[in-house]
Formats: sequence, C-alpha cells, structure tokens
Amino acid sequence: MSATLAQIAAARLAGKDAAARMEPALKALAAEPTIVSSVEAATARAQARTLDQLAARGQSAGPLHGVPLAHKDMYDRAGQVTGFGAKTGAGMKASETSTVLARLDAAGQIDMGRLRMSEFAMGPTGHNHHWGIPRNSARAGAISGGSSSGSGAAVGAGLVRAALGSDTGGSIRLPAACNGVVGFKPTQGRVPMTGVMPLSFSQDTVGPLAATVAEARLVLSIIAGPDGRDPICRYAPAMRPRGEALGKGLRIGFASGAVMAPASRAMTAAMGAVRERVSAVARTREVGLDLLTTLGEAANAIAMSEAAAVHADRLARAPESYGDQLRSRLAQAVAIPGFAYVRALQLRSRARAEMMRRVFDEVDLFVMPTLHDVPPLAAEHDVGGGQGVAAMIGKMVHFTRPISFLGFPALSLPVARTADGPLSVQIVGPDWSEDLIADLGEWLEAECSSGG
Amino acid sequence: MSATLAQIAAARLAGKDAAARMEPALKALAAEPTIVSSVEAATARAQARTLDQLAARGQSAGPLHGVPLAHKDMYDRAGQVTGFGAKTGAGMKASETSTVLARLDAAGQIDMGRLRMSEFAMGPTGHNHHWGIPRNSARAGAISGGSSSGSGAAVGAGLVRAALGSDTGGSIRLPAACNGVVGFKPTQGRVPMTGVMPLSFSQDTVGPLAATVAEARLVLSIIAGPDGRDPICRYAPAMRPRGEALGKGLRIGFASGAVMAPASRAMTAAMGAVRERVSAVARTREVGLDLLTTLGEAANAIAMSEAAAVHADRLARAPESYGDQLRSRLAQAVAIPGFAYVRALQLRSRARAEMMRRVFDEVDLFVMPTLHDVPPLAAEHDVGGGQGVAAMIGKMVHFTRPISFLGFPALSLPVARTADGPLSVQIVGPDWSEDLIADLGEWLEAECSSGG
Repeated sequence: MSATLAQIAAARLAGKDAAARMEPALKALAAEPTIVSSVEAATARAQARTLDQLAARGQSAGPLHGVPLAHKDMYDRAGQVTGFGAKTGAGMKASETSTVLARLDAAGQIDMGRLRMSEFAMGPTGHNHHWGIPRNSARAGAISGGSSSGSGAAVGAGLVRAALGSDTGGSIRLPAACNGVVGFKPTQGRVPMTGVMPLSFSQDTVGPLAATVAEARLVLSIIAGPDGRDPICRYAPAMRPRGEALGKGLRIGFASGAVMAPASRAMTAAMGAVRERVSAVARTREVGLDLLTTLGEAANAIAMSEAAAVHADRLARAPESYGDQLRSRLAQAVAIPGFAYVRALQLRSRARAEMMRRVFDEVDLFVMPTLHDVPPLAAEHDVGGGQGVAAMIGKMVHFTRPISFLGFPALSLPVARTADGPLSVQIVGPDWSEDLIADLGEWLEAECSSGG
Repeated sequence: MSATLAQIAAARLAGKDAAARMEPALKALAAEPTIVSSVEAATARAQARTLDQLAARGQSAGPLHGVPLAHKDMYDRAGQVTGFGAKTGAGMKASETSTVLARLDAAGQIDMGRLRMSEFAMGPTGHNHHWGIPRNSARAGAISGGSSSGSGAAVGAGLVRAALGSDTGGSIRLPAACNGVVGFKPTQGRVPMTGVMPLSFSQDTVGPLAATVAEARLVLSIIAGPDGRDPICRYAPAMRPRGEALGKGLRIGFASGAVMAPASRAMTAAMGAVRERVSAVARTREVGLDLLTTLGEAANAIAMSEAAAVHADRLARAPESYGDQLRSRLAQAVAIPGFAYVRALQLRSRARAEMMRRVFDEVDLFVMPTLHDVPPLAAEHDVGGGQGVAAMIGKMVHFTRPISFLGFPALSLPVARTADGPLSVQIVGPDWSEDLIADLGEWLEAECSSGG
C-alpha cells in the first residue's frame, strides 16, 4: 500500500523536499492526457518552494504539507483558466481562488493541475464529447463514471491520493465506484461553493475522492464549514475527529424491496456480505426505501431548471460551444415549466420529512449500492445523443440521485474486488452525519481489506 | 365615528347580547350580494349564543368578544365550502378550520360569512368574471381593488369593522386604498397559512383590512405567530403592544425618483403633505427606490409559476371552470420556464440584500403611494381578457407588488379625502417591523383625521 496523505505530509515536512519530490508526480500527470486536462507546473513549483522554505524554518503548513494533489477542472484559482470540461475556449480565467482550493492550499497541498470531467459536470458516465473517457485502472475498457471522471481515474491510477470532485446526482460516488476508490459526498451545505462552477445550486456539493476513507475524511474536514460568503452553508456544524460510535447501540439499515431491483446478483451478494460483517458491531435491519424510486423526475426537473438558469444565455448565443448530447439535454432543460420545478421543490420537502420519519427514526445510517453492478464497459454506454441517453442516465444514477436530491451525505467505498472490477456500496445518513458515516466506513474498509 | 372593535367587544360582553345585536349585521350582509358571497347565519348564531353564555358566567372570550366579522372566501372552516371567488361548484368543503379563523374564533369573533374576491385571488382590480365588482362606498363607480375586493368594500361600507384579506402582490393594500380603509400586509412568514387557499406560497400573506390602524393591528396580533404546522412562519417573533417609537431618532424615508413616475399630481401632493407632518416627529429624507421598478417580471414569474403548480391539473381537466381572463393568465403561467423561476428567486435574494444595505441602513421605514391615484373607475379597467390586461395589472400593482416580492411588511392607510375619492400611502419596513409601522401609522392617521 502506498503512503497515505498523512505519511506523505510527514515525509515532506521532515525532508524539506516537496519541490524535488513533486517532479515525478508532475511528469506522471503529463503522461495521462485522458485523465488530466492541464498540468500547472509553474504555480505548483512555486507552492512547493514556499513549503520547503517553511519546513526549513521548522514550520508545517498543515496536515497536507507538501502533498501533491490535482482536482476536477471546475474550481477557480486566481489567474488560471477554469475549463469546466468544455471545449477549448469555453473556460473562464478566474480572478479569485475558490474557498475549497484556498483551504487546501492553507493546509499545505501542492495543486499540480486540473482533471478531466464531464462537460460542465453534466453526465454520469464520464463520456466527454470533446475529450473522451479517462483511462480506468480498475477495469480495462470500463467507463470512469462522471461527472468527476478524472478525479476517480487519477486516484484509481495512483496519480494522486485524493482529488476534489463535485456531486449533484452521483458525480463523486459514481466515478469512485467505477475506479474502485472512495468518494465522500457531504451534506448539501457542508462545503462552501464560493468559486465553484454551479450546476444545480440546490443539489451541488463538493467533496473528495480518495484512496481510503480516512483520507477522504481528512480532506473533507479541511474544506468543510462556513466561509462567510456562501449562504447555503451558513449553518454547517463543525466536524469531529474519528469517534468510537460503533457498537450494539448503533442501528444500520440495509436497502430492501423495489429499490434494489436493478442490483446485479454480484451486487446483491456483496450487500449480503457487508450486512453480515456489520452485524458483528451494530444492529442491522432491512429498510424499505422504495420512496427513493419515485424522486427521479423531480430531481431532474430541479437539476435541469437550475442548470438552464446557468446555461440558457450561452445556449442561445453559442450553441456550438456544447457537445451534441449536452446541447440536446440543455435544449430540453430550458423548456421545463416553472410549475414542475415548484412541484419538485414541494415533493423534496415532503420526501425529506418522510425519510426522517420513516427511515432515520428506525436506523442511524443505511447501506445501499452505489452502482447496480461492477463498472460498465464503455462500449455498452456509447449511445450518442439519441433516445437512449435518458434511460442510460436513469440507470446509472438510480442509487445516487435520490440522495443528492434529498441533500443527505453519503460515502461510497469498494467492498469487493471481482475479476470484472470492484463493487461499491454507499453509507447514507441524515444531514450532518458525516462523522458517523466515516466511522462506519473506516471500520468496514478495514474489514473488507483484511478479507476477514 | 362608529364603535371600534374594542368598544364593540366591551359592549357585547357587558350586555350579553351578541346574538341579538348580530341580527341587523346579518341582515345588512344579506343585502349586499356584490360584496358578500355567503351569509353563514347558522354557525354565526351558534357562535353568538356560546359567547353570550360565556358572558353570563362573567367570562370574556377575548378581545373580539361578540364582534361580528366576515372574511374573504378563502379561509377554511370545517364543514363549510370555501368558494375561492370561483364559479359555483368550484369550491371545496373543508374538513378543518384554518389557523387564522380558529384564532379569531378563540378571541371571540362571530364569523358571519364569506366575502367576494377576485377569482382564486388573482386580479388586482377586483373584477370577477362570475360575480362582478363589489360596490365601492368611497367613490361611486370605482373598482374595489383586488383580490380582497369584498373585504375592502365591506369595511368601506361599514358592514364590518375589519375583515381578513390576503396579499400576494397588493391584494390587501389595493382594496384598502380603493375603499378608503386601512390594510395591513404582514411580513411573509408572520401569519400561518394553514387552511388558507394558496396562490403563490413564497409571496402569500394573510392580514387584516380594518376601519383604523389600531384595529388592523389588533386583528393582526391575534392571527400572527407560529402554529406548529406552517413551516414558513416557524421563526416569526412575537408582536408587541403599541410603543412610543416616534421621536427625532426615527428616520423615515420618502420614495423619490423614477419609482414615483406613475404617481398623479394629487398623489404627489399628498405624499408631500405626509412628509411635512412626519417631519415634526421624525427625521425625514428622500430614498431612491428605483430598484423596485426592476422586479416586476421576476415577481410575475414566481407568482405565476407557483400559481400554476396549484392550478395546472384543474386547468387541464376543467378549463371551463375558470373565467376568460384567468384562464388566459393560467395558460401563460404553465408555460413559464423553470429557469426563469430560478433566476427570479436569485434576483429576489440579491434585491432583498440590496434593500437592506441601500435603504434600511439609511431609514427605519419608508413611505410610498399604495395606488398611483384615487380609486380608478370601473369603466377605465374593463379591458376583458385581451392584450391590455398585463399592462393594466402592471400599473395597478406598481407600488405594491415589489414589496410582496421582497416579503417586507407594509401598512396602507388613507391620508387624504378628495372629491374623487381617497388617496392612500403605504408605510414599508424590513422584516418583522410591523410594530414600528403601526406606531407611525396610528400617529399619522390621527394627524390626518384631525386635519392638523
């Protein structure tokens, strides 16, 4: 197993060698054009030198001191172009640095560059009309998942230990599952979106993809909390360090019923194995989550209306700046009626209340697949811009989108490795339950890797 | 001057004669079919008898003990049909009583019946395709204003001392101004909407029309505050009794600039006279409110999208159940795109922040016309369902709709009586400033009626 974020930081601090040790990482990034959209060597080297000077004075920048990272190409950094996964020239030069990047900088990261993503973060498969599909190290020929496709592929390929992604309907958890890594979608409102490309402001979240649960948790704890600018996270409570929440008092639900219909036999078996493990340290029970299967249309109405509010002007002015599939989706999006959006908001309020009463009164957290199966092969999903797109998107996001719609936090982690690639589940909890979710996730990850 | 609510309550309590003294009031209501949609004599008599029995035991029900009232036909009362100002048969029999009626009942009112309104509360002139225009006692041949047309006309005609209305874009203040009475639109979220017909849930408010400011304030204080059911008023603070807020420290703004362009010469003169009076007890200054002239389209997008969420199914199923003008407005409403609604919400957030920074940092309250002039004659506004409707509605709501859109409280009161009818202004403040608004309103009302 490679060194963790904490181990890397400790080594760079002790060695005062962040600048020197980063060069191979920069080179590795430059060699992966399907995963990396731009290597920002100049700013990275400047950051690294500053960190080494700090270390020479015996000071640590923070828990990421000298750790080389790279992130999805949708977070502003002053003076750099944010590319959005769009075609060349559609990006925007930023005048201010996003809160999330600034916080990682302050914690000592070196930001080496920008990772591929679905065009404007729309698309759960990771296909990108302009830039192709990032190479998947977990299953040859498989899609990388999207929209944080490059983040999943980069962590999966070992280019970085962690990378920021964003999740509006599954865009952190799906690439995590496809690439056999961990993805942590926080509660809506946990992480400030200041300087982050908007897709659907009422569902957008930023969170980490990482090699392990502990590392995902560390990165999330660094970027979380109010920044005094994004009103949506004004009331986010503080996160706490690792706890000892596991025990017979904890109640863990396992998804059952119609919501599980799309799950493959392998996935169903993996869920069963997880339940058996968890029952050793907590009370487990089945939970009916069929409510989640009724939210797709409303989630789509909200996501597409909010996306259209961002894109309608560009779509009218420069339709050719979008890929075929995205242009077709946006053309539908601008026609969604306002009353459908209003009804979707009302449904969300009712469904959140229902989940709190029917599910989270009975269990503290629940477990559900992330994807219905192992990562699908790219060939299966190459459906162009036609009729198949909606059905294909619907299947990909079956387990992830309802959770984004409701705003709840969810951690995706691989729980089995098969010959056809990894199988991942997500641990879902009520608002602000990230600490408990991570406690269970760290324990489950250790159990699964020990093969016990 | 007739007896006030407080005087009537005291007399009914002392005389134990609520039932007997209500009969002439019931008869007067029955004689005004343009103002009253139904007289509910049986329930009124039962309420009156119960109150007299209470009084016979030396007990008062509350500040409205034995006071006969009547309200807009959009508040549910268990067992009665709520009519919505719609055509016969379009109403709904209620199974529960609305919070606002239940609170007035508990305070001792006798609810004599239901008052005319614009069809489904849409329409600022008070025209109703099915039921005509309520008779206006303040100016012969004038419209009653809408949508609380019957409430304005009933108070104006002296049928009741106060009546509930609702205000989504001016629907309390406009009928108040047209009928020369007081109208008090509370902060959005001050009064629970439980059991109230929805029009545009993010702008709807319920409040009183009344003969005097003190009476409007009394009724508002009775219906205000959380009911544990409507989440929108979960955080409404308590109201306080009459204060002594006036004094040289108080800063009162007077609308100036482009926002005043539609005001008639008579209205401009009335505003000047008010400013002169107010300057004796507070610091006055002009405030630029041109921002308010930019919000019409967004207010309309929100109101119409939210209304369409209520009406789309009925419109598809039974279009003939609507009048021509309303059907045409709803047909446009269902076609408003979701992204326009989203942008309107975003504009509202920005505009509220701008008002707090630019206006309410400089003044505590501001004064602005309610209508641009005296109550318009019905003939001027009889434009059918054609192109003129939008322009006519836009002019009527020029001063009232932006305040509803922003959610601020506003009190409309007459400040001059001319040969062509009353001229009214509204006093507007930031969220939850109803107490201060009422303090200034009571003082100004006394000044204007003394002719001093």
